[in-house]
Amino acid sequence: MTPYQNLQKIRDIKPIIHHITNWVTIYDCAAIVKACNASPVMAHAVEEVEEMAGIAQALVINIGTLTSEIMDAAAKAARAANRKGIPVVFDACGAGATRFRDEKSLELINRTKINIIKGNISEISRIAGFDVRTKGVDAGDVEVSSAQAAGKLALLRACAVVVTGKSDYVTDGTHTYRVDNGCALMADVVGTGCMAASIIGAFAAVNADSAQAAAYGLCCYEIAAELAADAAHGPGTFKEKLFDYVYNLDEAAVNARQKIVIL
Amino acid sequence: MTPYQNLQKIRDIKPIIHHITNWVTIYDCAAIVKACNASPVMAHAVEEVEEMAGIAQALVINIGTLTSEIMDAAAKAARAANRKGIPVVFDACGAGATRFRDEKSLELINRTKINIIKGNISEISRIAGFDVRTKGVDAGDVEVSSAQAAGKLALLRACAVVVTGKSDYVTDGTHTYRVDNGCALMADVVGTGCMAASIIGAFAAVNADSAQAAAYGLCCYEIAAELAADAAHGPGTFKEKLFDYVYNLDEAAVNARQKIVIL
Amino acid sequence: MTPYQNLQKIRDIKPIIHHITNWVTIYDCAAIVKACNASPVMAHAVEEVEEMAGIAQALVINIGTLTSEIMDAAAKAARAANRKGIPVVFDACGAGATRFRDEKSLELINRTKINIIKGNISEISRIAGFDVRTKGVDAGDVEVSSAQAAGKLALLRACAVVVTGKSDYVTDGTHTYRVDNGCALMADVVGTGCMAASIIGAFAAVNADSAQAAAYGLCCYEIAAELAADAAHGPGTFKEKLFDYVYNLDEAAVNARQKIVIL
Repeated sequence: MTPYQNLQKIRDIKPIIHHITNWVTIYDCAAIVKACNASPVMAHAVEEVEEMAGIAQALVINIGTLTSEIMDAAAKAARAANRKGIPVVFDACGAGATRFRDEKSLELINRTKINIIKGNISEISRIAGFDVRTKGVDAGDVEVSSAQAAGKLALLRACAVVVTGKSDYVTDGTHTYRVDNGCALMADVVGTGCMAASIIGAFAAVNADSAQAAAYGLCCYEIAAELAADAAHGPGTFKEKLFDYVYNLDEAAVNARQKIVIL
Repeated sequence: MTPYQNLQKIRDIKPIIHHITNWVTIYDCAAIVKACNASPVMAHAVEEVEEMAGIAQALVINIGTLTSEIMDAAAKAARAANRKGIPVVFDACGAGATRFRDEKSLELINRTKINIIKGNISEISRIAGFDVRTKGVDAGDVEVSSAQAAGKLALLRACAVVVTGKSDYVTDGTHTYRVDNGCALMADVVGTGCMAASIIGAFAAVNADSAQAAAYGLCCYEIAAELAADAAHGPGTFKEKLFDYVYNLDEAAVNARQKIVIL
Repeated sequence: MTPYQNLQKIRDIKPIIHHITNWVTIYDCAAIVKACNASPVMAHAVEEVEEMAGIAQALVINIGTLTSEIMDAAAKAARAANRKGIPVVFDACGAGATRFRDEKSLELINRTKINIIKGNISEISRIAGFDVRTKGVDAGDVEVSSAQAAGKLALLRACAVVVTGKSDYVTDGTHTYRVDNGCALMADVVGTGCMAASIIGAFAAVNADSAQAAAYGLCCYEIAAELAADAAHGPGTFKEKLFDYVYNLDEAAVNARQKIVIL
């Protein structure tokens, strides 16, 4: 399967992507999944998350604005997803910023099976057990390399790990990908990280190879971002055009622009 | 009253539209109401919903990301709206997807007076008691026709019912409207359904004929969507232009494009 | 320091602006702060707000969709901010609309030190103790002048007060500014008021003179709004361009357009 074929499979199958996510970028997460022709469903009531995960083809958990109640619902949904055998993506948004985020993240990872853990270098380093400090939800200065952090966490948790950045690293401990697509403007726009996790959820919903799905998803998403940035005048026009370019992404553009290096 | 006159009345009177809605499209619901020059207010604290409904001219309830607490607040607000005699619109977003949504929807409908129930064909079929299964928040495959589902529910609940789709059906059991405005792109954009319910709330706030208000609201909104789609390159540019076109909608465009059939 | 130099200082220092805000405009608040190159962090769990405020350079509290739990978290965060000595901005969004909003606003103001209170004329009049009634979250008709309301509240609470409107008034009781920038379209767009408070938070994070920071922040933000309005066709295109213009705002535009009158 190529990156474009993975996208095309989403468009054909229209998987349901259940999200338990944050209140800041919840619209963007739904919209980016919908732009792939998948079907986003956002539901966090503890009474319905198991059943909702049960009709989904992937689950995306994002702790951007976590509370104890949300994390209880996330764990319940993740266990239902585990039983059903659908992939669970965990976006460790802001991990390292507070003890509460660290504890709740580890609690989730310890008690459920996460298939793909995604974060920036600060977040993944913290989840991997390196001693770093996150600057809010933006990446702080850390001395660990993305490849190191991803590799350590993949081994530790036996899952695929995604470290986003100028280059993205994806590894499952066996196969490692570097994705060199994307553009500088992405770091200046709220929601690009959260949307990446949602995209990965959609790609993983129709591709059983978690690391490949993550790399392919990032690649397609970031090609759309490159095209959007070329047409944008700043973060406002960029965001709106990003949805258009994901929606219209065609095989020629993906094949011509894809920069995935297998390490 | 014509559809445009109904819109103009909103612009003149600037009704307050109280929403208890979901966290995904809460901005869009507020923005589309504001684009009609009405005054959206979003408030869900159980301590203030009665008082807020008391200063409003319509109440819109949407269960997209319902919780037990939100539904308690919604019921309280609906009862206050009932006492005041202002219209209550219920968007059965995602009904049929989980038992929790079905139970909470029926609880609300049984215990309060809803003036307008709105949903896609899966959602309305479920609320009407047909045995269908919703695919998340998108319409699933159902064998019931929109006209059938709307008719049954309108009789059952003695209210106006709106079934959105390629053609929209609105009926109060006595008068039935089919609205043929709109465009294919609407189904590919997150929030178009929720915004439709909010628009209906604004139209009903200044038009005592619930079914007519709903048909007129959908007609104006979908004309703006047609114009936005013509100028858009995908879901991102469409959404942003939709607010512009609702804001700028003039009598000539509405009169030339309106496709309301009285059945 | 000039308004532009204050903006430039934000761009250089990249302060973290912790928000406890509403679910309607939470994305916009984060995005406008990010457009200044500051680092927004939105976190409301009572377990982490103290720690999050502890890594921030300013705290913005907005009661648009308040609940009791959110207000407990806000008070806790504000006390942590007070201990650390970072500025706390309070956006009295919708104060005057319900008793609950009034009570919770006063509770917060009485129990913590707020550095800057911001609202429209209805909201500030109510917080200042004038007998007015708010029309939802939009400004109602009040007989008090903005200068009067701001002056009374600044004296009463020994803080800076911002009253937004066609002209904005900012006073700390000693220095008073009138900001005449901005455009009519701002009043027709959901979120412009909330974003103003977030901008003020960012400006205050790097400028110890609260009243000056508020006036400078409003000035820069509203210059961007003027530029966006000139390029927009309605509220949808305006909002998206606003982020672009804040992001790209340069010294020449600010110096040529700034309309701050010291009263």
